[in-house]
Amino acid sequence: MSDRDDLRKALFEPAAVAVIGASDEAGKIAARPVEFLMRHGFAGEIFPINPRRDTVLGRKAFASLNALPRKVDQAYIVLPTGPAMQAVEECVRHGVKAISILADGFAELGEQGLELQRKLIALVQGTGTRVVGPNSLGLVRTWNGLSMTANAAFAHDKLNTGGCTVLSQSGSLIGTFVSRGRTRGIGFANLVSVGNEADLSIGEIGDCLIDDPETDTFLLFLETIRHADRLAAFARRAAAAGKPVLAYKLGRSDIGAELAVSHTGALVGSDAAADALLRDLGISRVNIFEALLEGPPLLRGRAPRGTRPTVTMLTTTGGGAAMVADQLGTFGIDVEGVGEASRAVLKDKGIVIKPGRIADLTLTGTRYDTVRTIVDELLVAPDTDIIVSVIGSSAEFFPEQTVAPIVDAVKAAKPGHAPVAVSLVPQAERAMQMLAEAGIACFRTSESCADAIRAWAERRPPRVPAAPELPAAAAALIAAQKGAWTERDALTLFAACGIATVKQDIVSVEDVRSGKPLDLSFPVVAKLLSADLPHKTEAGAVALGIGSAQELRAAVERMLASAKAYAPGARIDGVMLQRQLSAVGEVLVGLREDPSVGPVITVGMGGITTEIYRDIALRLAPVTPAEAAEMLDDVRGFAVLKGFRGRPRGDLAALAEAVSRLSQLCAGGLVAEAEINPLLVMTEGHGVSAVDGLVATRASLNSIAGPSWMANGSPG
Amino acid sequence: MSDRDDLRKALFEPAAVAVIGASDEAGKIAARPVEFLMRHGFAGEIFPINPRRDTVLGRKAFASLNALPRKVDQAYIVLPTGPAMQAVEECVRHGVKAISILADGFAELGEQGLELQRKLIALVQGTGTRVVGPNSLGLVRTWNGLSMTANAAFAHDKLNTGGCTVLSQSGSLIGTFVSRGRTRGIGFANLVSVGNEADLSIGEIGDCLIDDPETDTFLLFLETIRHADRLAAFARRAAAAGKPVLAYKLGRSDIGAELAVSHTGALVGSDAAADALLRDLGISRVNIFEALLEGPPLLRGRAPRGTRPTVTMLTTTGGGAAMVADQLGTFGIDVEGVGEASRAVLKDKGIVIKPGRIADLTLTGTRYDTVRTIVDELLVAPDTDIIVSVIGSSAEFFPEQTVAPIVDAVKAAKPGHAPVAVSLVPQAERAMQMLAEAGIACFRTSESCADAIRAWAERRPPRVPAAPELPAAAAALIAAQKGAWTERDALTLFAACGIATVKQDIVSVEDVRSGKPLDLSFPVVAKLLSADLPHKTEAGAVALGIGSAQELRAAVERMLASAKAYAPGARIDGVMLQRQLSAVGEVLVGLREDPSVGPVITVGMGGITTEIYRDIALRLAPVTPAEAAEMLDDVRGFAVLKGFRGRPRGDLAALAEAVSRLSQLCAGGLVAEAEINPLLVMTEGHGVSAVDGLVATRASLNSIAGPSWMANGSPG
Repeated sequence: MSDRDDLRKALFEPAAVAVIGASDEAGKIAARPVEFLMRHGFAGEIFPINPRRDTVLGRKAFASLNALPRKVDQAYIVLPTGPAMQAVEECVRHGVKAISILADGFAELGEQGLELQRKLIALVQGTGTRVVGPNSLGLVRTWNGLSMTANAAFAHDKLNTGGCTVLSQSGSLIGTFVSRGRTRGIGFANLVSVGNEADLSIGEIGDCLIDDPETDTFLLFLETIRHADRLAAFARRAAAAGKPVLAYKLGRSDIGAELAVSHTGALVGSDAAADALLRDLGISRVNIFEALLEGPPLLRGRAPRGTRPTVTMLTTTGGGAAMVADQLGTFGIDVEGVGEASRAVLKDKGIVIKPGRIADLTLTGTRYDTVRTIVDELLVAPDTDIIVSVIGSSAEFFPEQTVAPIVDAVKAAKPGHAPVAVSLVPQAERAMQMLAEAGIACFRTSESCADAIRAWAERRPPRVPAAPELPAAAAALIAAQKGAWTERDALTLFAACGIATVKQDIVSVEDVRSGKPLDLSFPVVAKLLSADLPHKTEAGAVALGIGSAQELRAAVERMLASAKAYAPGARIDGVMLQRQLSAVGEVLVGLREDPSVGPVITVGMGGITTEIYRDIALRLAPVTPAEAAEMLDDVRGFAVLKGFRGRPRGDLAALAEAVSRLSQLCAGGLVAEAEINPLLVMTEGHGVSAVDGLVATRASLNSIAGPSWMANGSPG
Repeated sequence: MSDRDDLRKALFEPAAVAVIGASDEAGKIAARPVEFLMRHGFAGEIFPINPRRDTVLGRKAFASLNALPRKVDQAYIVLPTGPAMQAVEECVRHGVKAISILADGFAELGEQGLELQRKLIALVQGTGTRVVGPNSLGLVRTWNGLSMTANAAFAHDKLNTGGCTVLSQSGSLIGTFVSRGRTRGIGFANLVSVGNEADLSIGEIGDCLIDDPETDTFLLFLETIRHADRLAAFARRAAAAGKPVLAYKLGRSDIGAELAVSHTGALVGSDAAADALLRDLGISRVNIFEALLEGPPLLRGRAPRGTRPTVTMLTTTGGGAAMVADQLGTFGIDVEGVGEASRAVLKDKGIVIKPGRIADLTLTGTRYDTVRTIVDELLVAPDTDIIVSVIGSSAEFFPEQTVAPIVDAVKAAKPGHAPVAVSLVPQAERAMQMLAEAGIACFRTSESCADAIRAWAERRPPRVPAAPELPAAAAALIAAQKGAWTERDALTLFAACGIATVKQDIVSVEDVRSGKPLDLSFPVVAKLLSADLPHKTEAGAVALGIGSAQELRAAVERMLASAKAYAPGARIDGVMLQRQLSAVGEVLVGLREDPSVGPVITVGMGGITTEIYRDIALRLAPVTPAEAAEMLDDVRGFAVLKGFRGRPRGDLAALAEAVSRLSQLCAGGLVAEAEINPLLVMTEGHGVSAVDGLVATRASLNSIAGPSWMANGSPG
């Protein structure tokens, strides 16, 4: 038996459990776990631990683990912070394999809590005892009645079983799933409030459940990303096992990100980086919370067969269907109507469907037979990737006419049929339950429906990560670098990575005056080199479009005069000359370390479009040239590189290659930041050219004063 | 009694109604109106008209209106299209004041249907008979049981009364409101399926209901904008009466707009123009459908006291509150926590609330007294504009602890207290009903809650429209213009409007060669004037930065040589010289006619940022300089004019003035389109300068081949 199986058994199939600090006062938070375990008929033994009571909620109580008649596999510690730490020690002594901790007062409090959390980790490390939390509302497995939770939502008598496992950084949210799922017939397999993830992370808990036969889908509620490596391993294994992972993540706005920090004590990376991680791992991120509850059947269904799937929309309400279609349109997903071939097949069966974006069934008749025949056909139609049915009043009053035929058609269909999404326009519990029972995605709002379809359409397998390949010359430059990197050092490093850099030369003022031949061909750009002139443009120390040696002489004299007027004492160290290139556009390529997800590579237009419109593509580094090419499609502003308004096309292949090469600098974690700004993109076939940039290696940063995580690796 | 009152009585308080074409087969669509009128106990007389039946659903049927024992005030025609037209004639003959028409086959079919719709309008025009529809599912007033509808959703035994009047372009959606409102205790006053609005529009129907004592709020479901003038009159009167108007509108995406056309036969304007109209009219547009159902109590509440209202958030679930706060953050609305003064007041009462963005009540105790005291305080706190309470499991299990104190506090509060929004994290019907009954906004999803709060925060009274003021000189130029407008003509017109235009002059090649003194001072830009050189840059016929007469001569010779090489036979008519200005930025200002809402004025950066990022501000024309200044705040790219990265600030006041002046060209509907591109914005205090532009007047367009609506006015 693997460690994974051991962990799964200890967490979700324990033979005996203890609740340490169990209260005898019904209604108290600390009374809930024992109450719920009994209520939901936990299959194993339950031991309340309370030294001040003989019984707890009518069940014999014990003073300590010592007093128990047998070893327990799992304990839920519901004591305050201090006593909870002592209880952890006791659990370790008794070899309890898994414990959950309710208490807060750890990392979510900041530095002082972090110290306590480190102590907690030290207590269990290497002992064989694993911890869920702290700050955890516990965990639940519905299939065996293991309700080891203090979440009030589990007070209902009956807990629906189901195939979704919920892993949530917010403890209260596990109750939300159960509460909202109940009325519509949706149940769950396991629900875990992971708390601060001090020891066991979402990744590790999820990983141990991949072989759980009752789990077919994972739902993550994320406030931030912790233990990205574990999350990655889990997501890849889940994808291989054919079990989709969906996530809702807070932090789209700055305030959301701020609340995530204060709430859970995590050092948060950017939401864009988290988004890139989730995408990389094949995790489907939804933006509407209920899509997490309603979307799983879609994500378990057949994948889209291309990058622009054909959505076939049936409806009994034009207005309701238009709501879904309008939102799909804002995601760039077109609704295509019933295809010609299917219309021909249906016509032979006496059902006439007009061409058009939406098939309005009120025109053909909303009887069982008609709807059944249409759905039977579309489930296997070659030009239907997904069926979306938007049902009006009949879902509430006559579900046997419009909902039952969908249920029966799906039940009768062979595997591999088109997935089906049903959006209900009225309030229609019975229809929701019929569809949930048949495992068909059913949406209560058009917003959730459109969001889940988008997530389905964007679904991709996890990316196979390539190891970064740093050219030996670049590695040597990094090793040899002493202190901070100048712009010249940076360009030299980029060149060593195989990125074309602008031809440049430094000459003395005397050489210019004497007309000494240059290594560069004209036209050139000239700048005065001077540490005393940080703002060269303002000092008049830059000249563009110099076409000859004679013009260069004149330009240098003009710049010297201007610089003298601007900063009389400025020391001039020479003249920097660069070949002046005529580019289609200028872009910015950057590599940096995100505190949560690690190195990320970005590309955008730079300047105003990046700053104001946040129009930038971001991926985990490194990326291959092909992956970099996909990034370019994500930057709206790159329209200017693609023949915008009659402009020439830029060399996008060379740009993708350069992005890929810069991303290789993440190798070995040596480079904290690298940026080419600007990288000129020439016309197609003429490559790119790095003009300026910066580099910060960890060594150079540490010698200044980098944030501690950069030296210490990603935060725990 | 006014016409409005007459119309309201005929539509919503008829003493006797006829259903023409009423079917005797229960379940048939044509049977529903009589069925529902009886079921909901309509207070007046009901006459089914069906010449082939003695009774309809057990009630005596009549062969025609002729056969009735009395006059009816209203008729619902549920016959197919052809017979429906005959029935309309019959209604007119009998002086029926209001009729609704179920049949489709009118404007929504395109040109052929439009012809029939025109015939329909002609039938009733001037007769005193008014029409709802065609393509209408009818209308309902809950207070007197008037269920003159074929919408299946009204089959329930009980219809909740309430204060919201629903006016919907989608007939099926009126049923959605009723269905979704029922379980949560939300009822309605009137619901109207307005259909194609051939005669009575949303505006006119809404207008006649402003004095309806049962209506306190209007909810619009819009597919497009029709009869914008009527809508405007209604919205202004509603605002004056203190009755808010909320709208959900399809068409955010191109596909949504397309479906709106095919579904209703409307000629649609742009969604941005519709958005500007709704904003202008003080109509609150929501983006999440359920916000229309759930938001009204907020919009009826106290208005925000500034442009950045202070949101005070209470919660029993950190994760749930973070979901709402995160979404508010994406709208630029900050959550501010309980203010210092309120914390002091509460501390005196023994309740300690920590400073922070969210007040987590689980720390203070979620007992009735505690919550009540906090809410009592915040309802009148000077630094709380709105209270948002996000409630977890207790809403489901113990609403008396966390929901009841809010209800009681609001009931006890004096008018003018802060509005309250409650977001429920679990499924909690009882809590929803308690809140609905107390008239407190209650949201089932965090998305709807955040969207409604955004709508509340953006709420403004209708704008008082200024009449456009066209300077006499500009009017004279428009009157005198023959044929199409050249760029020069356009600049002359802009100058006549009081917009600074770039200094320019046309000189002959000979004058340049002879060194004749110029009216312009250097530096200048020079272009060869030639109808044979449409692409002047490519032809090498443009020269920038000419600093002296000598440089001008050289530049002109160079351009002539280049143009000759490019297009050997090109005729050169002279040289256009413009003063070369150094601007902080270039912008585009445009005036055009939207087919739905009329003249609109736009301003943006022009070029790529406008085309790719759609970063443009749009308002109904004309705008005052102050209103134009507000528009400038809506263009993100204008950051470059506001001291971006150390650049000088642009003359935003002059820009706003120019936008206002251009917008005056909408006067009298003479100008179909006017655009300044670019308008240079100089440094602060140095004004703006129009460099290029175009103008199309209706006269000039008609002489070419403009779309018919431009000549005929806005479509019906």
